[in-house]
Amino acid sequence: MKKKLGKLILDFLVKKKVKYVFILNGGAIAFLIDFFKDRNDIKYVCVNHEQAAAMMADAYSRVGPGFAATMVTSGPGATNLITGICCSWFDSIPTMHICGQVNQSDLKSKDNNTINCRQIGFQETDIVSMTKGITKKSIQLNTSRNINKLLNNLYYLSTNDRGGPVLIDIPINYQKKDIEVDPIKLPPKKLLNRSYKINFNKFNSLINNSLRPVFIIGAGIRLSKSERNFYKFIKKFNIPIVTTWGGFDILPFNFKNYFGNIGVYGQRAANLIVQNSDLIIALGTRLDTRVTGSNIKTFAPKAKLLIIDIDKNELNKNRYSNKKIKIYSDLNYFFYKFNQESFNYKKFFDWMKCCQQVNDFINTHVERKYKSKTTSPYNFFDLLNEYSSKNAIFVLDTGAHLTWGMQTIKLKKKQRLISAFGNSPMGYALPAAIGSYFANTFKQIICITGDGSLHINVQELHLVHKYNMNIKIFVLNNEGYGIIKQFQGLYLNGYYEGSEKGYTNPDILAIGKSYKIKTFIIRNNKSIETVLSKVMSYNGPAFINVVVDKNQTIEPKLEFGNSLDRLSPIISTKSYTDMMKKIS
Amino acid sequence: MKKKLGKLILDFLVKKKVKYVFILNGGAIAFLIDFFKDRNDIKYVCVNHEQAAAMMADAYSRVGPGFAATMVTSGPGATNLITGICCSWFDSIPTMHICGQVNQSDLKSKDNNTINCRQIGFQETDIVSMTKGITKKSIQLNTSRNINKLLNNLYYLSTNDRGGPVLIDIPINYQKKDIEVDPIKLPPKKLLNRSYKINFNKFNSLINNSLRPVFIIGAGIRLSKSERNFYKFIKKFNIPIVTTWGGFDILPFNFKNYFGNIGVYGQRAANLIVQNSDLIIALGTRLDTRVTGSNIKTFAPKAKLLIIDIDKNELNKNRYSNKKIKIYSDLNYFFYKFNQESFNYKKFFDWMKCCQQVNDFINTHVERKYKSKTTSPYNFFDLLNEYSSKNAIFVLDTGAHLTWGMQTIKLKKKQRLISAFGNSPMGYALPAAIGSYFANTFKQIICITGDGSLHINVQELHLVHKYNMNIKIFVLNNEGYGIIKQFQGLYLNGYYEGSEKGYTNPDILAIGKSYKIKTFIIRNNKSIETVLSKVMSYNGPAFINVVVDKNQTIEPKLEFGNSLDRLSPIISTKSYTDMMKKIS
Repeated sequence: MKKKLGKLILDFLVKKKVKYVFILNGGAIAFLIDFFKDRNDIKYVCVNHEQAAAMMADAYSRVGPGFAATMVTSGPGATNLITGICCSWFDSIPTMHICGQVNQSDLKSKDNNTINCRQIGFQETDIVSMTKGITKKSIQLNTSRNINKLLNNLYYLSTNDRGGPVLIDIPINYQKKDIEVDPIKLPPKKLLNRSYKINFNKFNSLINNSLRPVFIIGAGIRLSKSERNFYKFIKKFNIPIVTTWGGFDILPFNFKNYFGNIGVYGQRAANLIVQNSDLIIALGTRLDTRVTGSNIKTFAPKAKLLIIDIDKNELNKNRYSNKKIKIYSDLNYFFYKFNQESFNYKKFFDWMKCCQQVNDFINTHVERKYKSKTTSPYNFFDLLNEYSSKNAIFVLDTGAHLTWGMQTIKLKKKQRLISAFGNSPMGYALPAAIGSYFANTFKQIICITGDGSLHINVQELHLVHKYNMNIKIFVLNNEGYGIIKQFQGLYLNGYYEGSEKGYTNPDILAIGKSYKIKTFIIRNNKSIETVLSKVMSYNGPAFINVVVDKNQTIEPKLEFGNSLDRLSPIISTKSYTDMMKKIS
Repeated sequence: MKKKLGKLILDFLVKKKVKYVFILNGGAIAFLIDFFKDRNDIKYVCVNHEQAAAMMADAYSRVGPGFAATMVTSGPGATNLITGICCSWFDSIPTMHICGQVNQSDLKSKDNNTINCRQIGFQETDIVSMTKGITKKSIQLNTSRNINKLLNNLYYLSTNDRGGPVLIDIPINYQKKDIEVDPIKLPPKKLLNRSYKINFNKFNSLINNSLRPVFIIGAGIRLSKSERNFYKFIKKFNIPIVTTWGGFDILPFNFKNYFGNIGVYGQRAANLIVQNSDLIIALGTRLDTRVTGSNIKTFAPKAKLLIIDIDKNELNKNRYSNKKIKIYSDLNYFFYKFNQESFNYKKFFDWMKCCQQVNDFINTHVERKYKSKTTSPYNFFDLLNEYSSKNAIFVLDTGAHLTWGMQTIKLKKKQRLISAFGNSPMGYALPAAIGSYFANTFKQIICITGDGSLHINVQELHLVHKYNMNIKIFVLNNEGYGIIKQFQGLYLNGYYEGSEKGYTNPDILAIGKSYKIKTFIIRNNKSIETVLSKVMSYNGPAFINVVVDKNQTIEPKLEFGNSLDRLSPIISTKSYTDMMKKIS
């Protein structure tokens, strides 16, 4: 049987549950995009910047079917994807980027006499070599044989083991070509049929010989699609649980034994628990420096690290002074195998009680200093929690607003929260909110961005209006790069070059309005509820300028070199000693 | 003597005549940017997307001192530059991109046990390997010795021979470091003191043995800074001159013997002259496929190619069927040496007369079909010519509006015209207009963009307002991707997927207004002059929505496979034969 390549690719995407492809048309991809004309089973979304397309695909994959695609033209079309591809790479998100390329006869690599020229074909750019290091595979099509096999192999790489983006660069001459459809031999579904054995004895004895164990839960739970097996697993233990930012939305805030998220901007109690533990069980987290603190030698000094990971590079990483025990496994397989057994564990009553007391103490005695002239972001997020729909998706950008949100948002059971934590680009939230919408058109999407981040993909506000999306865009507006300012205040004597000085904002609300989105303003703490009650009660877009004090800082925050238990502002010696007593 | 690295870099940039650095602050570059606090001799411009910073720098270099710099943070800050760096790479523009990088202690390349991890430091991304192929050099700083030498070598590479961008990636730990200032031994000024000899005999005999020679002038004249020597050189000849798009602004439209620009969207007469010549003298052009037509074998079939180029890769490129004679030389050196001699050349009176007659015939008998309900872009550009200031800088984007402009704009003597011809990214014009402003704050800048291209860097409208720049932003608005539509109409049966279908515009004027820029609308041919007379008469920003018919095509245009003399719509056989008679 023969099919045109374009049709074969769309058929493939449909099989992988991709309903929307994020595209920006151009000369080198027009032939491929033309194949949408006959389709009802797959649609495209026209974006206004390829960067946004890659970020939409990233989010679509995160909260949707676990796969997504873009189609863009050669040259600037392809290079504009790169920052978005990085989001998927660092956070292990399966996405496929389909780039048009010039005719093979115009490729500089075609001949020895042109290979060193800068460019032969119009808008020819070697996107494959540029993206080799940020994809699981990046290739240029140079055959019309075994295309099904190729696509499915790319899919397999993208979605299996530690996932990530893939890229395929398709010269124009293939796009309309009739090709023989090769039968697909799918790679074996390795998931629950892995070849390795897991040493549960080691696992069990480590836990039962521990006095103060703690689970650190990362993004790997969702990435490995092991949510169901994880919930069964975790109920077996009476051990404190903390999460990383990547693992933030695995558990509702009131989940039993859950003490919140840890790290440089973490919860004080969660950090204290980790620092005082003697066994850290790391599930699906690479324990990066924003989790451990930059001075890694101070991380949980008394704890052994028990790490379960599918990425051998992460297992072999040797940056901690802690004794490390590695278990190589896909998490879903690990939980699945575990759940088939009936292990028993100590109940750690004293340790749990101690953790609970520390947590209560902090909640009672340690207050955040709220700036009150304008809107306190902490008050704002407290109330946003209340007004959010039960299955809302929070999508966060990069900057102070991200940290305020992560410190304050309390997720309900069916809520999700995403951000591009590893790459952490400004401008992620708006396109990612749009990507989330296409994966879940019926859900409320809460987009949290800042006055700095908004501009990076501001052009996509048009799509929010065009599809009348139920996206609430909150711009936490502190008239500058707040997180950089805090850094400059701490380490650079507060000259604020290029963060407050030299930086100005346009009229944020006017911009929202120009895209025909209903706009609102939250000027101060008093108006938070009034506005939220209006904004959150209707199904449709909203754009809200949340006026935050210019000097509002992030609290608590770990200063450079300090250990996780010494978040600034450092609480008084007496309280600190008291807590340490409780916990050790 | 010791200096902090940050100070040394700013001192270096000042010496290279960089007055403004285009920046976006972030954690990994904040230490470097802090050094601006003590400076009056160099300033920074805060942009809202790093892509725009790279394009501003590109344009600043093109129309300014021939060098420019950006400063951005690691990760997304750096990857956001890439499309802009490509503009400088493909068009050989000297720019320097200074990226912050994580501390060396956090680099994954630091240890064998981390080198294969995806990321160690926060926002760590290997920008050096990603940009190796699109820069003259891209390096990460790993020493604090001989920094002056390093910077000056980068500058030398960037500005000499065939120029291009360079990138330096600076880990945080170096940025505030005291370093020993190494004495600079500048590389020799090779320019007018080259070691190779030029065979002018060959050059002269080729011309004097030719019957129908033609000069094709490209961007290389300006790139090699040989304008003055070129004007002396060209006056020696009575030979028709045509330009590529890259060479568009070397000559005023009424320069003696100048017949306009050639190529796929070229002037009919210019194309006919080239196709019927027997000797092409290519000065500073790589004769790419938009110049020769995609069917290269049909390019000037009777002509020898005499190519003078500094890039050996371009000289050795062997895609033409024409006999090729290569002269390896920097153009400035070539003209300089030439001008020291006193050569005599044939006057080619018959050939010149014939060229002139063909040109007159076309101007008289071949008309463009103007759509007249709305604004004809051809009428618009005709009138824009008249209203433009004598030293205005035209900055063009990518799409139909670019081709309309290139087909119609008639440059006056001191005017400039730039676009990113090789990379040709949508969204170049607005940031490039801003970059041009900072190089020439007193000049009128005419920014030509389209409704598709505008969105890519729309966020930078804020800067236009903030600095009250004398930039006139014309949005040629045909409610879709016109150039793609024309392509789809020709080759894809006019389904217009993703160019008209699925594509919609926001309210363009409302967006301009939201950034506090004075807005105007040109609805039809009648209102062109009324609006232009208002807009062009004051010193300050303007944003003009130019309503163009959705179906307005580009005419003439070369269809795929045709030779340059057969631009579509193909003129009637009789006229065509008449012309051929005149010319051959």
